[in-house]
Amino acid sequence: MYMQQLIDKLGREKISQDKKVLIQHSKDESIHTAALPDVVCFPESAEDVAEILKIASESLVPVTPFGAGSGLEGQAIPVHKGIVMNFERMNKVIDFSPEDMRVTVQAGVTRLQLNEQVNASGLMFSVDPGADAMIGGMVATNASGTTAVRYGAMRDQLLNLEVVLADGRIIKTGTLAKKSSSGYNLTGLFTGSEGTLGIITEITLKLHGIPEYNMMARCTFDSLECCTRAAQNMLQAGIPVLRMELIDAVSISMINRHSGENFPVKHSLFFEFAGSERAVKEEVELASELMHNHGCENWIAANDTVKMKQIWKARKDLNYAIACQEGIKEIGGDVCVPISLIPELVSFARTRMDASGLNGAIWGHVGDGNFHTSIMYNSSVEGEFETAEQTNDAIVLKAIEAGGTCTGEHGVGLGKMKFQKAEHGAALEIMKQTKRMYDPKGILNPGKIFMDE
Amino acid sequence: MYMQQLIDKLGREKISQDKKVLIQHSKDESIHTAALPDVVCFPESAEDVAEILKIASESLVPVTPFGAGSGLEGQAIPVHKGIVMNFERMNKVIDFSPEDMRVTVQAGVTRLQLNEQVNASGLMFSVDPGADAMIGGMVATNASGTTAVRYGAMRDQLLNLEVVLADGRIIKTGTLAKKSSSGYNLTGLFTGSEGTLGIITEITLKLHGIPEYNMMARCTFDSLECCTRAAQNMLQAGIPVLRMELIDAVSISMINRHSGENFPVKHSLFFEFAGSERAVKEEVELASELMHNHGCENWIAANDTVKMKQIWKARKDLNYAIACQEGIKEIGGDVCVPISLIPELVSFARTRMDASGLNGAIWGHVGDGNFHTSIMYNSSVEGEFETAEQTNDAIVLKAIEAGGTCTGEHGVGLGKMKFQKAEHGAALEIMKQTKRMYDPKGILNPGKIFMDE
Repeated sequence: MYMQQLIDKLGREKISQDKKVLIQHSKDESIHTAALPDVVCFPESAEDVAEILKIASESLVPVTPFGAGSGLEGQAIPVHKGIVMNFERMNKVIDFSPEDMRVTVQAGVTRLQLNEQVNASGLMFSVDPGADAMIGGMVATNASGTTAVRYGAMRDQLLNLEVVLADGRIIKTGTLAKKSSSGYNLTGLFTGSEGTLGIITEITLKLHGIPEYNMMARCTFDSLECCTRAAQNMLQAGIPVLRMELIDAVSISMINRHSGENFPVKHSLFFEFAGSERAVKEEVELASELMHNHGCENWIAANDTVKMKQIWKARKDLNYAIACQEGIKEIGGDVCVPISLIPELVSFARTRMDASGLNGAIWGHVGDGNFHTSIMYNSSVEGEFETAEQTNDAIVLKAIEAGGTCTGEHGVGLGKMKFQKAEHGAALEIMKQTKRMYDPKGILNPGKIFMDE
Repeated sequence: MYMQQLIDKLGREKISQDKKVLIQHSKDESIHTAALPDVVCFPESAEDVAEILKIASESLVPVTPFGAGSGLEGQAIPVHKGIVMNFERMNKVIDFSPEDMRVTVQAGVTRLQLNEQVNASGLMFSVDPGADAMIGGMVATNASGTTAVRYGAMRDQLLNLEVVLADGRIIKTGTLAKKSSSGYNLTGLFTGSEGTLGIITEITLKLHGIPEYNMMARCTFDSLECCTRAAQNMLQAGIPVLRMELIDAVSISMINRHSGENFPVKHSLFFEFAGSERAVKEEVELASELMHNHGCENWIAANDTVKMKQIWKARKDLNYAIACQEGIKEIGGDVCVPISLIPELVSFARTRMDASGLNGAIWGHVGDGNFHTSIMYNSSVEGEFETAEQTNDAIVLKAIEAGGTCTGEHGVGLGKMKFQKAEHGAALEIMKQTKRMYDPKGILNPGKIFMDE
């Protein structure tokens, strides 16, 4: 019934029930169980999205938005089947204003595609989650990454969203002005709502100037306390690092094993500095002084491309060390805590991982207090998954107890639903009420964020 | 009836019906008509606030939160009478973590009081709206001011809020972590909600390092276009100005008349730079070069206190030139538009003001695209108020039409209710639904933001 309506309204060329297409839209990059949708739609405009939602509302069919499929918590998995919306055809830059350092894009534009278009004007889109995610998906999860320490997360880049509501109404949430005190802040509310309150179709973003000069640096510490305190000191001194990443000693040894490298097996900080040549050189000098005051060893800094790559190599290799193990899966965490608690939390995580008997990696965007844990398990060995899950749960609950959050950047999706009550307490009921207000029929990405809605 | 309940629950010492106290809580610093409340409560904790709200909910009595009374749009005026809540007794710093550059305060702490407490640790609270407002009020209006160009508005400083809901439930909206992708962003939603969705009782804020060295500069331009383009160029070049203020030529002549000064009657830019001494000096040098490339005249820069005061004097005197005219009132605007449209909008505003026959001043936080208009009228001269209002309306509607907002920092209150439909369109209905969800009995600051709720 609704399938025929979709065909009538959108035309066959915007709809697929091809088995391969359905499989492609059944999963993301997480370990969460795949689920086949009944149909995949390829809207080309907000009006198409509105038509789909009107039909879905009428027939009570679930609608799950799908971006690049690079999510890490199952947000794009259609757990209750129904319609998946793929945004790859909504990939146009609608308006680019270099003088106002602003761009408006459709939800399906990817971050690399966007940068390609704006870089020539000396501008850049700053958020870098690693994957070439779609901007719509990045808004929906409030993505961030290594550069958030300097430029903030997705939420900090947004001026306006075009959103299609469950009943097909199209609204805009903001303006083109850089700030506003008018009305309720719907832009912020939709950001991180993971397709559960409305479907984001267009995004107006702030851009930043491309720094003219870059340098990278690396150093090591014997203790996590010194390492973290050193990182905090960088922020207190107002040094505007572009990236500041931590890898703990055990994870460095994992990298050495994987890559055949010989990086010093210590807690390590990786830096990138960016700005005018004079400013960057001054910052690197000051940073070196600060780090040495905190007892760092193995300080290296460089500005030529080859050496910069070498410096950052351990950080880069970490991803491969985790991903490239035959038969091994990983439960990934991304808790975020006050920076002063990083030593305590990272030590806790390391102790728990070691006690579990499983391999685990720890690295983080230390300037934000956001650190990643990856617990590796063999799904064909009985009990390993459960052990990994229990270990991850303990780390997350410890972070929440310390005043932190269960997710700094990946979002809730399926994996963090169980922590929502512990983190949000009485506010969770308000969030559920909000969900019911925006989506009274429960068609928008059902089965995500809330355990029991 | 509810009065006795308030006395029973809170005790007489937290309640006043003294005429002088009622009058003091009947108005703010705006031109909006004063209204006497029936009673003023002085809660000392979130629990007191919850008790008041429970009683108000039961008896359907309006509750209007009152901060320092420095608002400019009537947000704190109890237009439907009832209870006013004054936060002056909730003025404690609850938790200060210098290492995490974070502080938690009660809603009644003022920004100068806060800075006094944190400055000794080398940290500062960055938002500067001019008045010594209470932090609670600043959150409720998403206040900003001259330093937003560098550090952002109130919304950008917030980690967590404690909020008491209409039915007395107490929730927290965030965590102590610097970023989060967990749950819906209630922190952002309450920010700028002007006491219409809940009462903010505690705020956790980010702090910033105090820059070690400051310099100020000033220059003038013949045309607004050059002036604005020069200001934009500062941002594109990535120069992190602390403040960058515009005053138009006619307003400079007003200042000269008022202060007996002889500032060049041209469009003027005022700058403050802050950072390490070397960085600031480099920035000032680069800024001078950029400004001269755009045809500036009368460039002065200084770093000693006396000269800095002189440079900033015109900007400071502007407030007095407007405020100190016997019998004269002003309608104040604070539209915010894309920066590239500042020349067009400022010219439009100037033309309309001149055509109205009334005196008008124009100045702005040009780095944000936020500019102020002050239209002066004599309320005892028939028709002058109406003319001033029509002129203001025309400027605001023009800004909205250009993709901007009716208020960059003062909030909606009473004065900008009439522009909400034009600015938010279909989203206004969602905002009204949100209001009804949070405040089903309509007791929270009724008569604000929405014309017809």
